[in-house]
Amino acid sequence: MERIMLAHGSGGRLSHELVRTLFQKYLGNPYLDQMNDASLLPGREQLAVTTDSFVVSPLFFRGGNIGKLAVCGTVNDLAVSGAIPKFLTLALILEEGLPMDELERVIESIAETATEAGVAIVCGDTKVVERGSADKIFINTTGIGYITDRLVGPEQIRPGDEILITGTIGDHGITILSEREGLEFQTPVVSDCAPLNGLIDAFYLPGVKCMRDPTRGGVATTLNELAGQAGVSMLLVEEQFPLSPSVEGACEMLGLEPLYLANEGKVLVIVAPEVAEEVLLNMQAHPLGRNAARIGQVQEGKFGLVLLETPLGGKRIVGMLEGEHLPRIC
Amino acid sequence: MERIMLAHGSGGRLSHELVRTLFQKYLGNPYLDQMNDASLLPGREQLAVTTDSFVVSPLFFRGGNIGKLAVCGTVNDLAVSGAIPKFLTLALILEEGLPMDELERVIESIAETATEAGVAIVCGDTKVVERGSADKIFINTTGIGYITDRLVGPEQIRPGDEILITGTIGDHGITILSEREGLEFQTPVVSDCAPLNGLIDAFYLPGVKCMRDPTRGGVATTLNELAGQAGVSMLLVEEQFPLSPSVEGACEMLGLEPLYLANEGKVLVIVAPEVAEEVLLNMQAHPLGRNAARIGQVQEGKFGLVLLETPLGGKRIVGMLEGEHLPRIC
Repeated sequence: MERIMLAHGSGGRLSHELVRTLFQKYLGNPYLDQMNDASLLPGREQLAVTTDSFVVSPLFFRGGNIGKLAVCGTVNDLAVSGAIPKFLTLALILEEGLPMDELERVIESIAETATEAGVAIVCGDTKVVERGSADKIFINTTGIGYITDRLVGPEQIRPGDEILITGTIGDHGITILSEREGLEFQTPVVSDCAPLNGLIDAFYLPGVKCMRDPTRGGVATTLNELAGQAGVSMLLVEEQFPLSPSVEGACEMLGLEPLYLANEGKVLVIVAPEVAEEVLLNMQAHPLGRNAARIGQVQEGKFGLVLLETPLGGKRIVGMLEGEHLPRIC
Repeated sequence: MERIMLAHGSGGRLSHELVRTLFQKYLGNPYLDQMNDASLLPGREQLAVTTDSFVVSPLFFRGGNIGKLAVCGTVNDLAVSGAIPKFLTLALILEEGLPMDELERVIESIAETATEAGVAIVCGDTKVVERGSADKIFINTTGIGYITDRLVGPEQIRPGDEILITGTIGDHGITILSEREGLEFQTPVVSDCAPLNGLIDAFYLPGVKCMRDPTRGGVATTLNELAGQAGVSMLLVEEQFPLSPSVEGACEMLGLEPLYLANEGKVLVIVAPEVAEEVLLNMQAHPLGRNAARIGQVQEGKFGLVLLETPLGGKRIVGMLEGEHLPRIC
């Protein structure tokens, strides 16, 4: 069987075959192998739960694919919430006619990334829709994590706190854009797509107040959310943003603001000033945080404004993303 | 804003507006209102988890719509596993151009059904894809339940156990088929789509060995799964299947086997013979179980065969669903 057929989503014989030959083969573990309507899992008194659907186009891009992204996105939402990611569910919507080997590569990548992130795929679902009713593969992952004693959240943020980012910004956004539009750069841009729980475990100290992964909408939108929730202002210093030369070049050429580009392997961290330096050094000592930098500071200001200091010393307001310049980034 | 635009999935301003004006308005609760990357929930030592995506077409049908179905499907998978459904996540993939009032009716129905089933929507996600890249609305719900002391599962099944069903079969399948093909019946068929946790609480007794909701693939496929997992045979008696007159008529007219039609509000129950009568009476006393019936018996037989005794006294093997006669039933 070289292509996905409608019968693979029937719940009947071909559905069972797909489960056995693909999902159990790559993803099998004692939870998944229960093969009942629901999987029984060990829990905790406090849980963190998050859900995300992935519709990225193209399916495969430099540095990742929709499967890797679907694991990272959900693992990261748990990790930035201060939780330990433990379990993922996996639900696929497939377009009739999808080449089976593309699906297999995606599932293989899900297996690899789940192992890297230390999470188990505990249950799943597959639906198949007629040709033309979906675009190849859509994936939902829902994540369950155990709560730690990490007290993080926007309500912890105070004026004077420092704003750190764990590395260069905009890499994922520019990668997708360049793959989609066939743009070529001297040094190809690679998506930063990565599970971030290991990095967070490496840099976390008490004094870390809040963490977010700036995906859709980028750093600007994420900081606007936080500033609004915390009732503070934020001042960013443009010159301090870590940017890869290719992303910088692409942004100049295309008139894009790196602050609005999606990232899939970065954490924005708000940290008390007295531990900022130590947290930053911890980040830089980890392979995923080598380019970590201070990019700004939290200030008084109840309107939740995010301000940007430009290289010439001027300041302007940076709002949330308006409209949509690059759909299906994740 | 009368239609969904790509920017509703941007993560930016319009995404936030949609969350506020639609999701929080209808679904708001203290878990959802945390508005962080992950929601913090009270857990338990043992959890049941299940995930399901819904791609039913048409979106609205007699007796339900994709929103109601998305809540029922996941609640029911938890309930038949012996768990108490507690929390649902909700992830939407929307097609650009979707009329906003259709989305609103779906969300309203999700809110209503979640209330009926006693579950809270605890986190969500919305993606928007370009016109033509998806068919209107796809929904994923992932459910978390608390484990009870109900010891159910295929490993409990023994020869001699009775097979019960909580009501008429095939109603959902025939409803979708008739809506899609414009078939008219004297008495319109109505989907049985309903949350089943209340019914299960009403009929459950120790001695109930296993429960499943026969959705995709119908009663035949579900019983084949159970017979295979339990290493037993099953003998069904065709004359004892509860069938509504319209479903019976439609099946005769179209040459369909009710045993393979999808149900969205029925439970197959395998029960020890000594409590079968009491469980059946409990079912019949509940509004969702009035037409409950005994439909067969578990027998010795290690090959996992499901046999059907026809009205003329013959027996034939009933296999899993082969192929797909009706895609996008849920």
